[in-house]
Amino acid sequence: MTAPAHVPGRVTLVGGGPGDPDLLTIAGLRALQSADVILTDHLAPDVTGLVDGTEIVNVGKTPHGPATPQEEINALLIEHARSGRHAVRLKGGDPFVFGRGGEEFLACSDAGVPVSVVPGVSSAVAAPELAGIPVTHRGMSQGFTVVSGHVAPDDPRSHISWAALAQSQTTLVLLMGVRQLPAITAALADGGLPADTPAAIVTKAASPDMAVVRGTLATIADLAVSSGVRPPSITVIGDVAALDLRG
Amino acid sequence: MTAPAHVPGRVTLVGGGPGDPDLLTIAGLRALQSADVILTDHLAPDVTGLVDGTEIVNVGKTPHGPATPQEEINALLIEHARSGRHAVRLKGGDPFVFGRGGEEFLACSDAGVPVSVVPGVSSAVAAPELAGIPVTHRGMSQGFTVVSGHVAPDDPRSHISWAALAQSQTTLVLLMGVRQLPAITAALADGGLPADTPAAIVTKAASPDMAVVRGTLATIADLAVSSGVRPPSITVIGDVAALDLRG
Repeated sequence: MTAPAHVPGRVTLVGGGPGDPDLLTIAGLRALQSADVILTDHLAPDVTGLVDGTEIVNVGKTPHGPATPQEEINALLIEHARSGRHAVRLKGGDPFVFGRGGEEFLACSDAGVPVSVVPGVSSAVAAPELAGIPVTHRGMSQGFTVVSGHVAPDDPRSHISWAALAQSQTTLVLLMGVRQLPAITAALADGGLPADTPAAIVTKAASPDMAVVRGTLATIADLAVSSGVRPPSITVIGDVAALDLRG
Repeated sequence: MTAPAHVPGRVTLVGGGPGDPDLLTIAGLRALQSADVILTDHLAPDVTGLVDGTEIVNVGKTPHGPATPQEEINALLIEHARSGRHAVRLKGGDPFVFGRGGEEFLACSDAGVPVSVVPGVSSAVAAPELAGIPVTHRGMSQGFTVVSGHVAPDDPRSHISWAALAQSQTTLVLLMGVRQLPAITAALADGGLPADTPAAIVTKAASPDMAVVRGTLATIADLAVSSGVRPPSITVIGDVAALDLRG
């Protein structure tokens, strides 16, 4: 008798899209269905119905709730792979649009673990789209900028120039930005973005509970409060935010 | 005998992703497989193998080649739907990231034709990603800007402020920008973006022929010429362009 052949483990980062499992890619679905274990979080779609009893571990950060530290997630991925498993890290949207996918990738490759990435539908584009807002539109917007609204403009950790973005003439898409919306809209107004620039907040995109709050740069932060907007939400600021391309 | 029941036609705009049919979404695949006719172009993935004999019409604009005028594409979609067909308009990347998807949507809804959109994996994010470049990365980039490089900075049709983008501290992603690269990189340098800012051009992403040319803001336009870069290509400018997260 010979020892069992070594089965090399590996890690696949999969972009889960904006929430509806139907917006997973075919390659992403295939990775999930070949996984031995799936590490997911609250921003990723619920894939329970797509895999047959595969272990799903929630490592998610819920707002104000318990979270698995990033270093621990990295360590878990490496440990699973070193045990010969195919570990899939399922992430909301695209793995390399915020969400620390790049760090997870580097942690694995630095540890000598084979790792690959399957791009996903980014919520930054798809959430507005499903709410009828195209981030680009002929004669209206020739580009768009996606920023995290997680960090306040005056926070020393913020490297974004909001004054420059106010002048850029691109559609602005803020991810995770509800709490900082008063400071961010003020910074954009200070930078010269007109107060009547259309703005919209999309919550729970790609789900039956999707809702859209519409206003302007001047009003959207107050509207977020009065409408009781809760995460996950995405804010769009620019002329396209006045469009409503829905069937 | 009664007349046959009226079968209402409809149009679905489907985001085809960056080129590999495996990066279609499940919802996109389902739309294609329920289509009576598919209108595609050279930027969309080849879906011949995914549908069983469905008529596929190429309305694509090839560089310097013949193209179906946009108005004619709109009219075709409406005509098919009015004949009771389900017409799928398959587009490269995401339908609302350039590519005039918004116009096609409005043309249909203005004509009273039921129309819906299925988001896709945007090449703006996925092409760099597949080349190992995350458009955001902790400690390096807190946002990214996607612009069409189709129009020169000094063209009166250009509304983008390149000087502002040079100051924005976001990763810049240029779609369709090879020909205008000398003018665009000059405008960014004039706007204060350092000459040694990393830059990379990704060509034919999501295909076996994918290639990456790496340089800096100062060198990338010349490298594009000396490397014989051809469309479709995507240019990334920013610190992340020096990363290479590949397995």
